[in-house]
Amino acid sequence: MRVRYAETDKMGVVYYANYFVWFEVGRADLLREAGWTYRDMEAGGVALPVIEAHCEYRRSAYYDDDLEVHTSGALLSPVRVEFAYEVFRAGEPGVIATGRTIHASLDRDGKPCRLPDRVKAVLA
Amino acid sequence: MRVRYAETDKMGVVYYANYFVWFEVGRADLLREAGWTYRDMEAGGVALPVIEAHCEYRRSAYYDDDLEVHTSGALLSPVRVEFAYEVFRAGEPGVIATGRTIHASLDRDGKPCRLPDRVKAVLA
Amino acid sequence: MRVRYAETDKMGVVYYANYFVWFEVGRADLLREAGWTYRDMEAGGVALPVIEAHCEYRRSAYYDDDLEVHTSGALLSPVRVEFAYEVFRAGEPGVIATGRTIHASLDRDGKPCRLPDRVKAVLA
Amino acid sequence: MRVRYAETDKMGVVYYANYFVWFEVGRADLLREAGWTYRDMEAGGVALPVIEAHCEYRRSAYYDDDLEVHTSGALLSPVRVEFAYEVFRAGEPGVIATGRTIHASLDRDGKPCRLPDRVKAVLA
Repeated sequence: MRVRYAETDKMGVVYYANYFVWFEVGRADLLREAGWTYRDMEAGGVALPVIEAHCEYRRSAYYDDDLEVHTSGALLSPVRVEFAYEVFRAGEPGVIATGRTIHASLDRDGKPCRLPDRVKAVLA
Repeated sequence: MRVRYAETDKMGVVYYANYFVWFEVGRADLLREAGWTYRDMEAGGVALPVIEAHCEYRRSAYYDDDLEVHTSGALLSPVRVEFAYEVFRAGEPGVIATGRTIHASLDRDGKPCRLPDRVKAVLA
Repeated sequence: MRVRYAETDKMGVVYYANYFVWFEVGRADLLREAGWTYRDMEAGGVALPVIEAHCEYRRSAYYDDDLEVHTSGALLSPVRVEFAYEVFRAGEPGVIATGRTIHASLDRDGKPCRLPDRVKAVLA
Repeated sequence: MRVRYAETDKMGVVYYANYFVWFEVGRADLLREAGWTYRDMEAGGVALPVIEAHCEYRRSAYYDDDLEVHTSGALLSPVRVEFAYEVFRAGEPGVIATGRTIHASLDRDGKPCRLPDRVKAVLA
């Protein structure tokens, strides 16, 4: 994932809110690796809105950096899931940022529902 | 409208795509002055998706600048409308950017429909 | 602060990362009330990059909502400050989201420096 | 390039300003194919700020769509360049959007300067 010019700010680094967009990409890719997509999941009637989000910034990310987001997931309850993220610059050992997001599992009526098995399959 | 840090880029000025977000604010405010809102219009079954967008950048805008968007509208056809924009720094005569957007008027089924009279009322 | 169309997502609500942009607006306004601006502070050689950010989402925010961000600040150390945020819909008692951000105080060389007195003046 | 959830709006499609971000990715990739990067060009003292931007929207783009941006460039004058863009959904013949941006070539002092030869090399 290359850092876009749009994602930088006048300090010359990536604006802090954009890390949460990358986290979104990270969890979508985690699901995709398991052969499913968040798009299909939503079309199937289950959404995972964020109810809590957190990020710690260790190093700056710069324009055109080639970044990797390592994502893992864990079940907090039958209707709640947490994803954890680590952002790296490709080929560098030091972590740029770490974060986590907590999501409710909601059905079409906005009521809590059990996480689909295909999501549970990607959780640690 | 104050320029947000999020809207700047590493060149130290506002990233060019953000002007189109301000244009959105400008046309929403134009409708609001006429006692209506775009939200209500959509709730009433008419949407105005953008089919063409244009911007010319004359001067840079900077973080924390206090900007004004002057918006006007014109009917292109019974089902098509154009808005024109001029962006100024509050209290300065020189224009920062000018732009225009063309919109189709669509009903709930995505079919072209006549522009509501309350929109026509704000057009020049 | 009106919610922009750009800030919504396909779920019909505000995308979660945008709350962090509003937090930025909130802390800039807090400083402005004290007669200073973050722009002037940066021009004076002190920056406050975010080193930690957190948000809890209680209710959804929608397009065109008129929102208020209530911001307060506290000194964590001579070189570190925390801001706390509460987002409300104008005229409604229930909080939409709460959050906090922690910032380092850095000089032009990127070295930790004491928070300017004019920032301390706005802290609780 | 996958459409991010952050890039959609409450209409369920991609918000119109985001196409200009993709255009930025397209022209950066064009330069990269020629063995250079916009990052290096800026570090070398030449910037290409946008002075005009245009987009025509033909079809909607949706969350998780796999998009391709086809970019080409042309010299308008020794100090001005135009890039043209076509956005496609991978594997589909119909174009989703077309656009173009015009850029000034500026040196470190913000004065017009000749386009670097390595940029000219990628122009049609």
